[in-house]
Amino acid sequence: MALIRSVFQDELDGVSQSLVDLTQMVSASISKATTAILSADLKLAEEVIATDDHIDTFQHELDARIIDIIARQQPVASDLRALVTALRMSADLERMGDMSHHVAKIARLRHPGGAVPAELHPMFQAMGTAAEKIATKTGVVIATRDTVMSLEVERDDDEMDKLHRQLIGTLVDPSWKHGVESAIDLTLLGRYYERFADHAVSVSRRVYFLVTGTFA
Amino acid sequence: MALIRSVFQDELDGVSQSLVDLTQMVSASISKATTAILSADLKLAEEVIATDDHIDTFQHELDARIIDIIARQQPVASDLRALVTALRMSADLERMGDMSHHVAKIARLRHPGGAVPAELHPMFQAMGTAAEKIATKTGVVIATRDTVMSLEVERDDDEMDKLHRQLIGTLVDPSWKHGVESAIDLTLLGRYYERFADHAVSVSRRVYFLVTGTFA
Repeated sequence: MALIRSVFQDELDGVSQSLVDLTQMVSASISKATTAILSADLKLAEEVIATDDHIDTFQHELDARIIDIIARQQPVASDLRALVTALRMSADLERMGDMSHHVAKIARLRHPGGAVPAELHPMFQAMGTAAEKIATKTGVVIATRDTVMSLEVERDDDEMDKLHRQLIGTLVDPSWKHGVESAIDLTLLGRYYERFADHAVSVSRRVYFLVTGTFA
Repeated sequence: MALIRSVFQDELDGVSQSLVDLTQMVSASISKATTAILSADLKLAEEVIATDDHIDTFQHELDARIIDIIARQQPVASDLRALVTALRMSADLERMGDMSHHVAKIARLRHPGGAVPAELHPMFQAMGTAAEKIATKTGVVIATRDTVMSLEVERDDDEMDKLHRQLIGTLVDPSWKHGVESAIDLTLLGRYYERFADHAVSVSRRVYFLVTGTFA
């Protein structure tokens, strides 16, 4: 019985590690997508788009593994809740990869032009850095179940929301001179970064709930 | 044993019925949100926003029920797959409710003005009607497991994508005269309707996969 429990624990640890791997994949993909959009780098944009397929496959295999664990081990109570939560976290993380993919697709669409006017580069660089940081920190939250750090992710998201509001403020200002098409690109880009961070918050909250049994 | 199986089957049917209930809630909410945005109806917008809390609560209770069924019945193979899929479908449906909520929030933000210029009313009416139809049809797909109809949902989504492309084409046309702020609202609104339909397609595909074991 002790042996079976130990195998099961190894399986749970393996799931947790795969979720951490996913956070690293999406952290890298949003970082590359940001570079691609700011430097109009078509090759890098194509790389992000191709990597998203890899992320999707990784997630599908992880989900199949989780369902197989539930079927074989028939966990109840907190173990079952942890596994169901892992399925939800993998869905959030896969969606973060989609957001990187969407950013890269706009970079590809506007190539050889750039989708982001020069004066907005610092703002998008800040959004990209915030997104990368929040994804990496979410990985640490999953690995360590550190509830203090899971609350930090919420504050990092507040920073992203602030940048997003600044962006929209810039676009609707009467001095905006790059026209409607550019504003549409930037509105969508802003939403992708915002959603990327929202999904990270969702993952961190799920960890917090697993550990404490309550919502922050 | 036959009795236990029968109770379990009743529970699975109950889950399926709750998912159908959710499709009806989100079908009604996107319909009301469309009316709210096109008639600048603040009261209706507030109603959609309030209803979204109700949808969220309904979904949380459904998810708790599904997890409880897995814990008690310890299903394997196709029954476990159906219950895990139900969790994913409920997440998609909850997200459709969020899209209605987002539409209603733009209606509230622009009140007493209207967010949609008069010449775009027919286009948004068509998007609203398509969204409502696709949600309702998704409910029938869940209830009947009709794979032919699940493929129809994909075609209905193609129609939504076409409307969405027409919208963006209108916004970037040099004759656009409503400015950048309006274009930003309409870009986001267009994305909300498009995502609403995407989630319905996701639900229909999951039903197709449950029934056939393959993707269309």
